[in-house]
Amino acid sequence: MTARTPSYIVTLSCPDTVGVVAAVTSDLAQHGALITEAQHFREPVSNSSILRVVFESGGSAPLDIEQLKRDFGKVAARLNMTWKIRDAAIRQRVLVAVSKQSHCLKSILHRWEVGTLPVDIVGVVSNHETQRRLVEWHGLPYHHLPIEPDGKAAQERKMLALFKELNADVLVLARYMQILSSEMCRALAGKAINIHHSFLPGFKGARPYHQAYERGVKLIGATAHYVNDDLDEGPIIEQAVERVDHTMDAEQLTTLGNEIETVVLNRAIQWHVEDRIFEFGNRTVVLR
Amino acid sequence: MTARTPSYIVTLSCPDTVGVVAAVTSDLAQHGALITEAQHFREPVSNSSILRVVFESGGSAPLDIEQLKRDFGKVAARLNMTWKIRDAAIRQRVLVAVSKQSHCLKSILHRWEVGTLPVDIVGVVSNHETQRRLVEWHGLPYHHLPIEPDGKAAQERKMLALFKELNADVLVLARYMQILSSEMCRALAGKAINIHHSFLPGFKGARPYHQAYERGVKLIGATAHYVNDDLDEGPIIEQAVERVDHTMDAEQLTTLGNEIETVVLNRAIQWHVEDRIFEFGNRTVVLR
Amino acid sequence: MTARTPSYIVTLSCPDTVGVVAAVTSDLAQHGALITEAQHFREPVSNSSILRVVFESGGSAPLDIEQLKRDFGKVAARLNMTWKIRDAAIRQRVLVAVSKQSHCLKSILHRWEVGTLPVDIVGVVSNHETQRRLVEWHGLPYHHLPIEPDGKAAQERKMLALFKELNADVLVLARYMQILSSEMCRALAGKAINIHHSFLPGFKGARPYHQAYERGVKLIGATAHYVNDDLDEGPIIEQAVERVDHTMDAEQLTTLGNEIETVVLNRAIQWHVEDRIFEFGNRTVVLR
Amino acid sequence: MTARTPSYIVTLSCPDTVGVVAAVTSDLAQHGALITEAQHFREPVSNSSILRVVFESGGSAPLDIEQLKRDFGKVAARLNMTWKIRDAAIRQRVLVAVSKQSHCLKSILHRWEVGTLPVDIVGVVSNHETQRRLVEWHGLPYHHLPIEPDGKAAQERKMLALFKELNADVLVLARYMQILSSEMCRALAGKAINIHHSFLPGFKGARPYHQAYERGVKLIGATAHYVNDDLDEGPIIEQAVERVDHTMDAEQLTTLGNEIETVVLNRAIQWHVEDRIFEFGNRTVVLR
Repeated sequence: MTARTPSYIVTLSCPDTVGVVAAVTSDLAQHGALITEAQHFREPVSNSSILRVVFESGGSAPLDIEQLKRDFGKVAARLNMTWKIRDAAIRQRVLVAVSKQSHCLKSILHRWEVGTLPVDIVGVVSNHETQRRLVEWHGLPYHHLPIEPDGKAAQERKMLALFKELNADVLVLARYMQILSSEMCRALAGKAINIHHSFLPGFKGARPYHQAYERGVKLIGATAHYVNDDLDEGPIIEQAVERVDHTMDAEQLTTLGNEIETVVLNRAIQWHVEDRIFEFGNRTVVLR
Repeated sequence: MTARTPSYIVTLSCPDTVGVVAAVTSDLAQHGALITEAQHFREPVSNSSILRVVFESGGSAPLDIEQLKRDFGKVAARLNMTWKIRDAAIRQRVLVAVSKQSHCLKSILHRWEVGTLPVDIVGVVSNHETQRRLVEWHGLPYHHLPIEPDGKAAQERKMLALFKELNADVLVLARYMQILSSEMCRALAGKAINIHHSFLPGFKGARPYHQAYERGVKLIGATAHYVNDDLDEGPIIEQAVERVDHTMDAEQLTTLGNEIETVVLNRAIQWHVEDRIFEFGNRTVVLR
Repeated sequence: MTARTPSYIVTLSCPDTVGVVAAVTSDLAQHGALITEAQHFREPVSNSSILRVVFESGGSAPLDIEQLKRDFGKVAARLNMTWKIRDAAIRQRVLVAVSKQSHCLKSILHRWEVGTLPVDIVGVVSNHETQRRLVEWHGLPYHHLPIEPDGKAAQERKMLALFKELNADVLVLARYMQILSSEMCRALAGKAINIHHSFLPGFKGARPYHQAYERGVKLIGATAHYVNDDLDEGPIIEQAVERVDHTMDAEQLTTLGNEIETVVLNRAIQWHVEDRIFEFGNRTVVLR
Repeated sequence: MTARTPSYIVTLSCPDTVGVVAAVTSDLAQHGALITEAQHFREPVSNSSILRVVFESGGSAPLDIEQLKRDFGKVAARLNMTWKIRDAAIRQRVLVAVSKQSHCLKSILHRWEVGTLPVDIVGVVSNHETQRRLVEWHGLPYHHLPIEPDGKAAQERKMLALFKELNADVLVLARYMQILSSEMCRALAGKAINIHHSFLPGFKGARPYHQAYERGVKLIGATAHYVNDDLDEGPIIEQAVERVDHTMDAEQLTTLGNEIETVVLNRAIQWHVEDRIFEFGNRTVVLR
């Protein structure tokens, strides 16, 4: 992670037509940009082209990125693109929300600390005090926003204000055990990632590991998804499972499940901050 | 798979109490039986002991298995056991039911042919003629039981009669695309294994791979279960999943899913015919 | 698999420089080609760009593919590309080599028969007669090329002649239990896929499942690779593993391993015939 | 993890003969012990019986465990058993050794902290100061034993003395990047668990993820094993792998590999402290 040539990521989607990839990459080439990574997908339901291209200067002079953006904007306008170009070195600002449990939080903090999760964690927010000591030990601010009786809406408003005040890019619900209101979900559309402790659509709602035990499944799983106002129905980003058997009670399923949640949530965060995820209706495309 | 010392399998369940394992294994020892494999599980909901023990003669003389069974019966009666002792060399008799697709059927036939699935296949039954040539090429009888308009009950009666006439032990629904009636399910309780083409309880009912595509899941799976009269809700025997991504359409999910079904169904059959599966309510215990 | 718009696949690699993707896709766009699939990779060791692009006509008129190829050739020459454009509907011609075992062969034949493996199988060659009946039942020619004492070189020459006579594109060693000579390997460089029955580089050489048993590994696997003249050291295309435990003897490991081999070999064949695999030294890049 | 009926674990191995299981379980039954868990394996190479039985009082009176042990000793002597009976509530004492990296250490500390890893961590020892702050934050003693030039033998003697002084039961090498001497290995035979960062026997020695990258494997893995004086050749306890592809450089393989190491090492520790692992030559039997 040493000083490297500045690198940029362009992501876009547009109605599919002849020449989309050519227009994008020709514009980049004219500005001297060398493509280091490129993914393309033609989304069949919406008939869209999706592109993610990483580029850097192909010569000894740095890219004139502002000029490149201006010129790219013209291409984008012509092809009716939704697009973004950003400096790959600028880390996204992550606000983490937790309740009492620490397994996902610790794993995020570890990866942030050792540098394998390329984000800036701007703080941790919680409806409990439980994880304050851990968070502050990492030198990060901890925001306790308790939920007063009949005060859930007020608490959500505070959380949203905090998100804006911290200039956060993404809210990671790392086992935050509160259901967000429809207003909150809409305000954070595409910016809030939740980890659900089951293999959706298998066991929605509360206590999914207990549901899994009751049903006698042979695999349990976890699902990272964007939140939307239909609980546990947001676009799925990533899922994983592990094998279980009859000797494991609901408590042991929970322990194993917690490990799966950690892995799945970490992957979802990473792909999100690397601009790899595109939403189409209730589905995601993850360009890896 | 050469001639070996005769080997026997005892399986039992009984109310849990002090001395169950001791009573069983002492009785075996008194008859000179050497234990080669033993699994035990204390089922917590029903408070039962479950045992599966494989044994053979521990000396040069063969076991007097009839005397052993009689004496074991006394122990079993005292401890209120449900039990069975059988010669491990006697293969279970399997009737396979299919519709038009062949992937599960071919895999079963292959394993039977090369000797890795220790069963006798007594025939294949189908509501279509599609797989007759394949089955007869293997030297096995093919029974075409078409479903006449308004004649499903009659067809099921014929299938059940066939099952009995062939002295079959288990019916394997290897992508048999008909829903069995409640009567049929009850008549075959614990003797009919189905492969459902999804990771239950995820996508019940028809066209699960299309449902999976619509939902945008990142893993698809298959589930082998005993049939009961609650469709897709029978006790789960085995499950597996594979990773999928946005580039795969419903057709490709189906192709991959067919592979998973094959693997999962083969395992379920093997465990069933090796007397490894115990049902408790809607859950199974598989003693491996 | 119904009649579709004609579709073409271009694959190429060239020294990396600014404008490679732009040059390729601009040329396609100028001929009215719509990109339906595109993968790009910048291979860091050789500093090459690799591209695989699938395209079809973007309008109502069909592509003038011959003209497109001619013009593409000029672009390719300028950028020093190794390249190929082919009609995606033209199936590659596969010659399968086996010895006595049938598990991989049957799986290939099944997928070919139901249409999920898009190849033409032009025949099966073997040093044994064992699988003749199976192959001929599928309506395919079976070539018995026995290995006479001291006649291995002669047998290989016959096999190579057969490969050429049948105009085969790829030789699939589906558990062909003979080591190919260096001459044979060189003659078939990049055109012969082998399935090795271990997780390379774990257990090279003979009886790998027995080696795995001796070593007490907790996972066994299989590896599909291109053959080269360094036995079991060819570029790896695909690998998979399954969990094993102490209860499984070498025979049971073999049975499970055979399943893994089947899955892994099928994937390797599919990727090969879809022009997804690029070799760089002893490594492969699989653009999926 | 509330107060429960006292529970005990008996583990044993002995030459296989008729009546081993009967003798053990009859003795337990005579003392009023109820079996809650029992695993048996007949190890074929050494022709041994292995048993692991968990038991508790089957009545209202507590077990007279001392009398039970004395009587059990007579049975054990008669059948030539190697055996142990211990109170399941007594946690094993774990000394963790690390170098600079923290991923395995943090995961062990987390599971210990939340109570899912039932051990007492008696300290952390390291040849570096790097992890002192983390360890002391958890309220655990940190022992810095630097390796002086030509002083490796002295450092090992200090580590061994520490192990004894702390009355530790097991040494966990959680990415301790020093090769233990043969003397140290012998002194800790069966009491030291190492995590090797590859899928053994694939890539032994240094920098295995770089070796994996060079070889172009499609899966990478990790292996937990008991240390012995043949480097990377100790009995394997557990292994796992994850899929990788050509886009991942050696650094990314390392990041992913670190996750696998964490999972694998945790499982190995858990099985060890639950008395589930038996060594036979260079292989382990894990009774789960």
